[in-house]
Amino acid sequence: MIDQSVVADFAALKQRGLKLDMSRGKPAPEQLALSAGLLGALEDARAADGTDARNYGGVLGLPEARALFGSLLDLPASQVVVDGNSSLALMHDTIVFALLYGVAGHPNARWSAGSSGGAVGSSIAFLCPVPGYDRHFSICEALGIRMINVPLTAGGPDLEVVSRLVADDPSIKGMWCVPKYSNPSGTIYAEDVVRGLAELRTAAPDFRILWDDAYRMHHLTERKHEVPSLLDACTRAGNPDRAIVFASTSKITFAGAGVAALAASPANVAWWQSHVSVRTIGADKINQLRHVRYLRDRAHVEGLMDRHRALLKPKFDAVEQEFSSQLSGLSGVSWSRPHGGYFVDLVTPPGLAKRTVALAQEAGITLTPAGAAFPYGKDPDDAHIRIAPSFPSLDEITLAARGVALALKVAISERVAHV
Amino acid sequence: MIDQSVVADFAALKQRGLKLDMSRGKPAPEQLALSAGLLGALEDARAADGTDARNYGGVLGLPEARALFGSLLDLPASQVVVDGNSSLALMHDTIVFALLYGVAGHPNARWSAGSSGGAVGSSIAFLCPVPGYDRHFSICEALGIRMINVPLTAGGPDLEVVSRLVADDPSIKGMWCVPKYSNPSGTIYAEDVVRGLAELRTAAPDFRILWDDAYRMHHLTERKHEVPSLLDACTRAGNPDRAIVFASTSKITFAGAGVAALAASPANVAWWQSHVSVRTIGADKINQLRHVRYLRDRAHVEGLMDRHRALLKPKFDAVEQEFSSQLSGLSGVSWSRPHGGYFVDLVTPPGLAKRTVALAQEAGITLTPAGAAFPYGKDPDDAHIRIAPSFPSLDEITLAARGVALALKVAISERVAHV
Repeated sequence: MIDQSVVADFAALKQRGLKLDMSRGKPAPEQLALSAGLLGALEDARAADGTDARNYGGVLGLPEARALFGSLLDLPASQVVVDGNSSLALMHDTIVFALLYGVAGHPNARWSAGSSGGAVGSSIAFLCPVPGYDRHFSICEALGIRMINVPLTAGGPDLEVVSRLVADDPSIKGMWCVPKYSNPSGTIYAEDVVRGLAELRTAAPDFRILWDDAYRMHHLTERKHEVPSLLDACTRAGNPDRAIVFASTSKITFAGAGVAALAASPANVAWWQSHVSVRTIGADKINQLRHVRYLRDRAHVEGLMDRHRALLKPKFDAVEQEFSSQLSGLSGVSWSRPHGGYFVDLVTPPGLAKRTVALAQEAGITLTPAGAAFPYGKDPDDAHIRIAPSFPSLDEITLAARGVALALKVAISERVAHV
Repeated sequence: MIDQSVVADFAALKQRGLKLDMSRGKPAPEQLALSAGLLGALEDARAADGTDARNYGGVLGLPEARALFGSLLDLPASQVVVDGNSSLALMHDTIVFALLYGVAGHPNARWSAGSSGGAVGSSIAFLCPVPGYDRHFSICEALGIRMINVPLTAGGPDLEVVSRLVADDPSIKGMWCVPKYSNPSGTIYAEDVVRGLAELRTAAPDFRILWDDAYRMHHLTERKHEVPSLLDACTRAGNPDRAIVFASTSKITFAGAGVAALAASPANVAWWQSHVSVRTIGADKINQLRHVRYLRDRAHVEGLMDRHRALLKPKFDAVEQEFSSQLSGLSGVSWSRPHGGYFVDLVTPPGLAKRTVALAQEAGITLTPAGAAFPYGKDPDDAHIRIAPSFPSLDEITLAARGVALALKVAISERVAHV
């Protein structure tokens, strides 16, 4: 039962003329300042193997950059490609190359085959665990790739649903996964889910899992959760080329000027090289070298992530505290308590997410549009709101979380009034 | 008539065990050292408009980076997109976006339409002035885009041939151009050619000219040759969206860690933005900011290019001197005397380019494979050898140029012997 005083409280909040943005998972300036070392002078542009990082070449990345990402991903450097500043671009290009050329081992099976007349991706489909990352879904939508929602359970995508779908439908060529601290639910994939994904029997022989390990090092608690390696599991399952792993330093160093990596089987790395070499002579090796010199090794990266955590944790705690005090016990309302990553998933009673976001906007609080975490921007239950507490200051977060909670309570009371 | 002593001279050269590489247009270390300022500390990562260059966003580039390229390209900043380190990638993605989505103003006419079964680009064609840049041709070849050779005349592509082809064939969707100091011929497009290209009546309504202005500032003489703006000419001709211009600082600052730009009509910029936004949240703005702070303005860039010229000119002079003294008066032999750019085009009697390159390799001199300057690597006359004198030292260039000249003379004498 909502106390009608919330309407008055909310009206008072609107009077304050806030202007708060919790819409995107952007690091705060204090987090970016942790990597000020990257802005310093680079004394020497020569890589360990003598490569002049200023000149052309090296389409797979500098050896020491590949080794660094290899140590972060627990993979040999030879299976890691280090590229430019955007892992999203690597995912996009992976799908585009598959559409244009087919995937490794299937050169005569372009993913675009059979799309005559329609969008280039219109004859294939991707599985999309939901809620998920809107930019993943935007790639599929732009290319006309049909998206199929798959429920996320506590341990990851519902394997029963996934197994059934991929077994029957050869047009299902791919699947998006954010295996650790998923955007936005915070889900940590369980060992049996990883194994199950690796062992799936798929009607499509050229099925690929795009494994966006965006939050691998991004813990919010003392515990460094581990998700088993999908690449290893796929190799053991006899599907070595199924997994393509993506990672970046976007939320380790600079969001817009970090370094991104792709990791996969040797056959997939060769496939990537053959196609990316047509696109470019190589990525920016100077930024790779700067990152290697600054980040040094895994232990140093983990130390840096501890400092990120020290800045982020109080913001997540503030959200938790406001939601707890305002929303506890409300029927149909829940929210994630993530152990890592950048988001809180606020679940409203069905049909109230859009209204809550609109109300929050009236109070000057910008949230990710309701539905954004679902393919085509359509949350079938209109029940998920993605909260991104990283960028605003702690005071602002507290205020914004309270405002969102109030907005939700107002939305609930409006519905009660209408019944 | 070849003096048979060349065979002995060449044998002596082979004994020296040279290891010289003139295969690619790479800047020399001394040239890269000119931009050491880019390796220094970046005092402040905030752009003029307050943008934090470290964070996400800005898919069209930092305003000041767009303004700088605008001043170099004589275009308003609003028509310039500044991206990552590779203009080749921008060209690749332009063609890929056109295949996937169609070009601006023609959203329902994907360039891939009608390619059912074959390569994604198999139903369209590009005009390729020859000799030209091998990496342009590699993009078309990978995508299955049919390439049609067009002769380069002294003032650019043969307009009569071009006009006839594009008037009749709606499958011709594009054309490659390197308008100034062309790779490898050094051709400078004449004003009437630029106007003619802008005014072409094309059977394809969605025809595009990819204008790779790679050597715009890269003069080898006192005279700064000017090529009229294709964008302006296209606008005047009523074809404002026909031209897409590409440029980069790869041969101004760092070959592998520079900044690249795309310039086009407002409609084309909007088209680019809509598709690139699906691919990435934005390019590396830190490197853009470093470039703006280091390069400052057009006058400063021109001063820097003078210093490049001071390093490059003696190398081109050495090639000229060796070729002159060794090859003058030989029937069917000629070479370009470029006023800018990175290459010399050595023309052999028909059928001798491959043999000359092979002989040079025997003497430890690596050249770009004969034929590389033509689509599919096939020089119909087997007569062009691309000489890239930028990277090796002056002594090495002298030696290598003499070796290539000797190799050519040996190839000629072999033929005489066989007649």
